[in-house]
Amino acid sequence: MNSMYEQRLKRLRDYLKREQIDIALITNPTNIYYFSGFYSDPHERFMALVVDAEREQTFMIVPSLDLEAAAQHSVVRDMIPCSDTDNPFILLNAKIGRKRIGTIGLEKKTFSVHRLERLQELFTGVNTNDIEEFIALERLVKSDHDLVQIRRAIAITEEALETALRQVRVGMTELDLTAELEYRIRKLGGDKPAFETIILTGKRSCLPHGKPGPYPIMENDFLLVDFGVYAGGFCSDITRTFVIGEGTKKQEEIYEIVLESNLAAIEKVKIGTPYGHIDRAGREVIAARGYGAYFNNRIGHGLGLDFHEIPSIHGGNTQVVQPGHVFTIEPGIYLPAIGGVRIEDDICVHSGGKVEILTTYPKQLRRL
Amino acid sequence: MNSMYEQRLKRLRDYLKREQIDIALITNPTNIYYFSGFYSDPHERFMALVVDAEREQTFMIVPSLDLEAAAQHSVVRDMIPCSDTDNPFILLNAKIGRKRIGTIGLEKKTFSVHRLERLQELFTGVNTNDIEEFIALERLVKSDHDLVQIRRAIAITEEALETALRQVRVGMTELDLTAELEYRIRKLGGDKPAFETIILTGKRSCLPHGKPGPYPIMENDFLLVDFGVYAGGFCSDITRTFVIGEGTKKQEEIYEIVLESNLAAIEKVKIGTPYGHIDRAGREVIAARGYGAYFNNRIGHGLGLDFHEIPSIHGGNTQVVQPGHVFTIEPGIYLPAIGGVRIEDDICVHSGGKVEILTTYPKQLRRL
Repeated sequence: MNSMYEQRLKRLRDYLKREQIDIALITNPTNIYYFSGFYSDPHERFMALVVDAEREQTFMIVPSLDLEAAAQHSVVRDMIPCSDTDNPFILLNAKIGRKRIGTIGLEKKTFSVHRLERLQELFTGVNTNDIEEFIALERLVKSDHDLVQIRRAIAITEEALETALRQVRVGMTELDLTAELEYRIRKLGGDKPAFETIILTGKRSCLPHGKPGPYPIMENDFLLVDFGVYAGGFCSDITRTFVIGEGTKKQEEIYEIVLESNLAAIEKVKIGTPYGHIDRAGREVIAARGYGAYFNNRIGHGLGLDFHEIPSIHGGNTQVVQPGHVFTIEPGIYLPAIGGVRIEDDICVHSGGKVEILTTYPKQLRRL
Repeated sequence: MNSMYEQRLKRLRDYLKREQIDIALITNPTNIYYFSGFYSDPHERFMALVVDAEREQTFMIVPSLDLEAAAQHSVVRDMIPCSDTDNPFILLNAKIGRKRIGTIGLEKKTFSVHRLERLQELFTGVNTNDIEEFIALERLVKSDHDLVQIRRAIAITEEALETALRQVRVGMTELDLTAELEYRIRKLGGDKPAFETIILTGKRSCLPHGKPGPYPIMENDFLLVDFGVYAGGFCSDITRTFVIGEGTKKQEEIYEIVLESNLAAIEKVKIGTPYGHIDRAGREVIAARGYGAYFNNRIGHGLGLDFHEIPSIHGGNTQVVQPGHVFTIEPGIYLPAIGGVRIEDDICVHSGGKVEILTTYPKQLRRL
């Protein structure tokens, strides 16, 4: 395990040298975990993994509160505690021991302008370089160890879903079902929901990002459940849509189109295929049946330490499928007057070219 | 209600004019909620509330996915949808209709360097001004409406705690109790935990930021429960520490010191008192008994739409207590060999000078 983190750090140092970046300052907690094995959400406090490529020195600045936990989990042994009243950039400066730094590598999507200005006060004239894409591309290819964790997160997800569904009754609210589902996640050993659980009934199921509310499940309603589990550092993400009772012909029609779209998009997944083609394959099925206007978001996204990672699977993405990629396929049709259907799977591409659907929960229309 | 948001927007516009900031670009979802009534976590997508002070124009850029929900909840009616493939800064530029902007106001603690660089590409030579502190100070003073929500969040918290504690048995794990507690939160109408619930037993209770794990509750252990509820947009935050069974004299001694510290700090709260004095009043009690080295974090923090807000209550804070402030007081003693005790209350200061302890859960040492 340690050697996994050390290999990752080595690849990072090689990259920094190649790009002539003197120092990397990594502050995204998930990336710190990726390189060190230590995870903590420092909230507003400052936490950083610092890689000084020139001096071959790697250390961490951690909130004093987290020092013990960091020492327990991180492969990086050199730790500087930072109290609530310390200026972390002064600590950084003292440790690095030189004010003149040519280029510093930052995760520019998460590093704040506030911190940049504090940094520039102490390291005057420093150039900044975005190391976000390099790290995202490193994280894109999942190891066997990563896959073990993702499979476990998915297993918890599917068992929690099946157990919670047994509680579904007409009159139960979206919030009640959410409580049941999240309780199962915890009891099954999941750390927490990977994102805010979406459980929507009736017409509300047409809100792709809706929040569960005190709305009762009713006869002939759609019931859409989109959730994930965070376990062992990794995420799952699944959506299934059910019908309460018999439902209508129209509901069945929409469901079958979304399922066909889901299968067509997955069918398209192959090493070397641009992600844009996968989106389009799924989208064409829906458009051909006249519902193109009711599917207005990307068909999927990467999945790993974060529940949204690269690749972003939209029509314009020319990035190609490669071994080790893990991502969702989740077409939907959202009709304000009737409700929405979404069917979402997690897909993994193996080095031999095998495409594995990691989510095994049945996709045939199920009436509850 | 609408007029509350409109008043907030007016105060913001007045501030911008006073500071000669042409446009405010607000992207922190919680601040967008504060000014518009619409909350959504856009994840990696772009969402902004834009206030063009010069032209008296206010509009929002929202992910296409969220357009319907935003139209339902926001007092700002002028909405620009932004799809997954749009460049939001091009949309912004087109809407504003002029490239020459002198100064743009940003929340520099959350606005990323990546976005700043994209912004500067389209608005060349623009100056930036940090509007974070202004917004934080606006949010610092809670309205009666805010207090209703905070009280409700606290009521759910205390009821969930009491109900979950009835399940506590020797052998139950930290994770099991976490599942029970979070289930009650949902069932009682809370939206979600306000932050990652901390439930720690035995020596583990000395980790101020520890995470619950598969560790069983044992006879004579401390059981520390630190959690909060997010309800109606606002947070609660409470800590209570219990002893399983009879416990030891030493545990009782530590508990009583922390309780004395908690009471001494609260006693110090008064309109006009610098927050640093409150921290010191609580800290002195612990130091006088020889445990100063085992209380190494600030004594409290502000509470509101976020569970950590200003004021940060540490010894060096010269900011003074004012009516409408809501904050926590949470001294602790953390002994690696025995465990930790923390007692945390939520405090509100009223305009007449009355100091109200919003958390009513008993603080006497309770043996479970």
